[in-house]
Order: sequence, then structure tokens, then C-alpha cells
Amino acid sequence: MYKLKENEGQLVMAKKLKEFQRMLQSEGVDAFLVTNLTNIYYFTEFLSRSYAFLIVFPENTSKILVPELEYEEAKEKIRGYEVNKIERNIELLEMIKQILETNNIKKLGFEESSMTVKLFLDISMKLDFLKLEEGAKLIDNLRLMKTAAEIEKIKRACRIADKGMECAIENIEEGKLEIEIAAEIEYKMRKEGSESTPFDTIVASGYRSAFPHGVSSNKEIEKGEFIILDLGAKYRGYCSDMTRTVVLGPVSKKQADIYDIVLKVEQKSINLCEIGRNTSAIEEKSREIFRENRLNEYFVHSLGHGVGLDVHEGPYLALKSKDILLKDSVFTIEPGIYIPNFGGIRIEDMICLSQNGPEILTKSKYDINI
Amino acid sequence: MYKLKENEGQLVMAKKLKEFQRMLQSEGVDAFLVTNLTNIYYFTEFLSRSYAFLIVFPENTSKILVPELEYEEAKEKIRGYEVNKIERNIELLEMIKQILETNNIKKLGFEESSMTVKLFLDISMKLDFLKLEEGAKLIDNLRLMKTAAEIEKIKRACRIADKGMECAIENIEEGKLEIEIAAEIEYKMRKEGSESTPFDTIVASGYRSAFPHGVSSNKEIEKGEFIILDLGAKYRGYCSDMTRTVVLGPVSKKQADIYDIVLKVEQKSINLCEIGRNTSAIEEKSREIFRENRLNEYFVHSLGHGVGLDVHEGPYLALKSKDILLKDSVFTIEPGIYIPNFGGIRIEDMICLSQNGPEILTKSKYDINI
Repeated sequence: MYKLKENEGQLVMAKKLKEFQRMLQSEGVDAFLVTNLTNIYYFTEFLSRSYAFLIVFPENTSKILVPELEYEEAKEKIRGYEVNKIERNIELLEMIKQILETNNIKKLGFEESSMTVKLFLDISMKLDFLKLEEGAKLIDNLRLMKTAAEIEKIKRACRIADKGMECAIENIEEGKLEIEIAAEIEYKMRKEGSESTPFDTIVASGYRSAFPHGVSSNKEIEKGEFIILDLGAKYRGYCSDMTRTVVLGPVSKKQADIYDIVLKVEQKSINLCEIGRNTSAIEEKSREIFRENRLNEYFVHSLGHGVGLDVHEGPYLALKSKDILLKDSVFTIEPGIYIPNFGGIRIEDMICLSQNGPEILTKSKYDINI
Repeated sequence: MYKLKENEGQLVMAKKLKEFQRMLQSEGVDAFLVTNLTNIYYFTEFLSRSYAFLIVFPENTSKILVPELEYEEAKEKIRGYEVNKIERNIELLEMIKQILETNNIKKLGFEESSMTVKLFLDISMKLDFLKLEEGAKLIDNLRLMKTAAEIEKIKRACRIADKGMECAIENIEEGKLEIEIAAEIEYKMRKEGSESTPFDTIVASGYRSAFPHGVSSNKEIEKGEFIILDLGAKYRGYCSDMTRTVVLGPVSKKQADIYDIVLKVEQKSINLCEIGRNTSAIEEKSREIFRENRLNEYFVHSLGHGVGLDVHEGPYLALKSKDILLKDSVFTIEPGIYIPNFGGIRIEDMICLSQNGPEILTKSKYDINI
């Protein structure tokens, strides 16, 4: 099995930064202002809890600006960047302006999909010598193809999620509240090394299983109901995301039949994952089985999404998506059927697509009956 | 004790909406597009897990647009609004455009402090008949003064945090990892009814206590070190936030002396909280004690922040803040001293400021020695 070496993170980040710098050169951008904290973590392995600014130049050493109260920690963690302290009595944009002017920056890339309008208008006004270039896609694209070190962290997050699912199944009993089971799951994953829960753990039973986005509530678990368990862990910043659906006690014929169809779609969809294939074509084909069974209208969301530092990132597997599957991308496949007044079923796995084809990273069993 | 009545939430929301509508009228805004999901929850008690759009008119019934997969749940929960489904094959902005045109909207307020540049540019381009007006402050101001029902929920969140702190103190022992203690705390709070942890629980010991933003790590707890415990719960959307600092085993004279100074600052600051007082003046006065003890330079953050649906919101208690304390506002007071190679101490309480003066909502003991 692949093992993470001590300084491997730093090397991978340096490689990714170089790739990004080449992108900036070919785009003709003089510098890029990274403000999205997850993207800053991607390049530096430093996660700010408040705000930080990373200025990447195509050739010179990149500079990171962090607030005073994170400076000591940032200095300790960050390698390969010039770490600057934002003093409390200095106007932040003045500081950025000086850096950009000194380096003769005219064209500045930024992340339009996360920067707020407020900051954008401030920059446009106070740094009026700049031409601002929308560039979120550049970093999104960089993040699509995972390195071996990233995949290893994701696998660890998946293994923790498997432990969480095992714990969920063990803890389900009649009369227990959904939120109690969610608490057990999160506690288990935390003890297994999860840094936090990337999204609120979903335990949705009975009529609530028909809400595709329903979270955990005070509802009691009853026998014979569908229970959707959707959970994820985080390991060194990387997320996992998995769903199983179970029934406590006797399973009706109708429940078992629909469950089998969803499982069939899950397996078919995974087998359709090939490097270079359009995600829209995969979802189109996956829906065929649902259509044959007159269930297509109940599959109200899309087939899947990428997972990495964010629990939802590219590639997007959807009918309207233009994404194609790339080598070393990691994503979910999660068909779901939600029938009001009957219940819902979702099965979700995480897939890593390598040259050898799709590898299922989540290993929990598919048994409906517990 | 104040008790929440069944439909009280709905009544409070209706009152807040009316107040907001009056604001829109006096600002001369034709409608307001709310995109921040927390603000949408504030008005509707419906929390979207993906995206939603609330259009508030000064006089007519407000409309909320939710994605198909949240429609059933939204319809069940939302009262007093027209709930619309965003169909998967309809262009969202086209839908919004039709609503705005039908209602002859020219001047549209929006939240510049949370809307992304991407959405802003999309709206500017595709809905070019609009004049967009920055209006985040309107809702921020509305949220500053809490209703009795909101304060009751915050108190519940504080009580859960107190249970979490009790659990933390009980669980601290030599050799345990910081993250293990964090896991115990979060599990306890979940079982006590917390919906989620509004921020990653901080257990920062020894040299790590000197990082004001340090989270929980794999470091083992050792005797004689400062341990900062910073935790919060969430109850029906409302957050709590509290910090205590303890030492396991013998406390040195220097540790005890500095701890006492921080505690003195905490108590003095709370007593300074009065309706109508500038928050900058409070922090200025609080720092006097630190100055007298040559510790002021180690107090590297500001004195406090509002807490409500967001764990960080207005009012901001800071030297540079222009906020003044209002009646029925809820906020933290959290002086902290961080000395590299020695350690850090932070004490944080939540305060509700009523006509009777400041009430401390967090009740955990201040004992340094455990």
C-alpha cells in the first residue's frame, strides 16, 4: 500500500504551485490573488480560521498574508512562501496594493466563485490600476486530478466513514432518535481520527427519507421504515461522503424491489466510469434503468460530484454538466429515489478513477436488511 | 422562566419580516433578493442545504424559490411565503427575471457581504434592467436585537455548552490526545441536543495554547500546561460560544498570576457593558489592566463578537469598531493573552444585554486548577 512520507505534502504542493504558475503565464496574468481559504490550504497546507491572502506570481516567490493571531502558527507550518503578518493597525488593501505596485502587477486573477461582492468592489475601487480577471476555473481544474498523496488521504477519510457506517448499523434500534444515532456516528468517526464532519450527518427515516436533503431530526426510528444514512469524515483536510439505506426488521417486497433497482443503477453507473467520458452521458445511461421501471421522475438530483478538500467540488456528474472524467479524479456516484408518502433510498460510493478503471473507495456493505 | 410557545417562531418571524419591509420602504428599494441561507432561515425557519432565493417586496407576499429536491420539505415548513420550485430544466435567473419584471422591480437590494462575484456579475448581465443596491447592513441590523424567542434558543445553546465544558473537565487526563477530548465534548453536546458544532471544538494545550486560533491536534495533554477549551453548541439554528482555560495538576505562581489578570479583565469588561456604549471604548478600558501589567501586546485579538444564527456576527467589540451596544443584543466577551514559549489563556462568556444590564448566559466555573 502507498505510504505517505514525512515531507511528501510539501513536495506535492510545490509541484501544484509550479503547475499553477505555468497556467498564469499561459493566461497572461501578472499575479493571482487567492482568497478562498480551502484553496490557500491546497497550496500551503495552512488552514486559516479567519482570513488570509495568497499572492502567486508566475515566477517570483509567492507571498501569504495572515492576520496577527495566526502568524505564529502560519510561520511554523508554511514552507516555500514568504509569510507576512497583517498588523492590526494597517489597512489590509493598502498592504496588498504596495505588494502589487512594487511587482508592477496590472492584470490580477481572482476567484469569482468565492470572493464576495464587498471585497471585489473594495478592490476595484482602491486598487483601480488593476484589471481583474476571473480565474476560479484555473484552481478548480488544478484540483481535479488528485496526486497519490491526496488519494491516500481521501482513502483514509473513506476508511473512517466505513467505521462510522458500521457504528450506525450497530446502533440502530426501535425508538432511538435519529439525532442520537447521528451523535454516535460522529463520535465514532472523531475517535477514528476524523478532524471534523464535512457536512451534518444525515439519519433520515420513514417519511423523512423522502426528503433528499433531510438532516437528522428528533424522529424515532420505527420498524419497517427506510433509513437513509449519509455521512462523511475528514482526514488532513480531505473529505469522504457515503450513503447507505437500510430497513430495520421486515422488508416489504416493494421496498426490496425498489432497493434492488437503485443498487443496480449504482453498480451500472460505476462501471460506466471511464477516463474521457462525459459525465452527462453517464447519468443519461444510468437513468435508463429507472426509466424502464417508471422511477425516473423520482430521481430528482444529479448522479454525483467530485470530492477532495471540499465535499462538493468538480467533476460534476449531471445531465447538464459539461465535465468529462479525468484520470485520478475522485467523485461520488449516488443515485436516489424519493417517493412522497413511501420513502427514499440513496446509495452513494466514492470512486477513484485511475488508468485501471474505477476503484470503489468506500467499502461498506449494501445489505438493506439489518 | 420564559417558555417557547408552539407557533411563537412563526409570529416572531412575521414581525421581523414586517420590520424589514418597512426598512425597504424607507430605503426606497423595490424589492430585496436574499441569497444568504442563514438570512433566509432567519425569515422563514427553513434552512436550505444547497441554495435558495427569497424575494421580499415592501408590500406584497414574499416569494421563496427552492430547488426541486428541497421543495417538499420547504412546503411543509414555510408559512407566510409563496413557495416556488426551481425546476431542473429552467434557467434560474430567467425565473427570477420574470418575477421581478412582473412586479415592475427596478431597484433591487442584495447582500454584498455574502453574494459571490460570480452571481453578482451574472445578475448584472442578465437582469440589466435592475439597479443593484448594497443592503447587507439592513438585515445585519435587524438581526442585532434579539427577540425573547431568540434569546431563549441561545440560552438553550449555552446550557448545552456548559454541559460540554463539564464533560471536557471530567475527561482531561495526562496522556490523552487533544482530539480525543474534543470528540468527547462534541458527543456530549450532541446528546444534550446540539444540532451540530458551529465551529471546530478547540482543545489547545501547552505551546499550542499560545496559538490564538489553534484547533485540536494529536498532541498529548501534559501536567502543568495551560489547556484552552473553546466550544459551542447549536440549538434550533442558534449558536453558543464559550472558552475556559485550565491547568491539570500543579499551577505555577506565574500561571496563576496571569490567569487572575485575564479573569479580572473578563469581569471588568462585562461590567462595562451598557446599552448605548461604544464597543471600542469598552475594549480600550479593558486593556488598561493588561497595560498596567505589561501584557497588552499579548492580547492580539479583539474583545468580542455578537452571536446568534452565526457564531460570529454583529455587534463587533473591537478598538476599530464603530458598533454601539444595543438592548437585547447577545455577544461574547473574551480577553486572551498568548505568550510564545509560555502559553495562552482565554476566558470567554456569552452576555445578553437587557434593560437590567449584562446577564452572563454561560455558567461554567472559572477554576483554573482541575
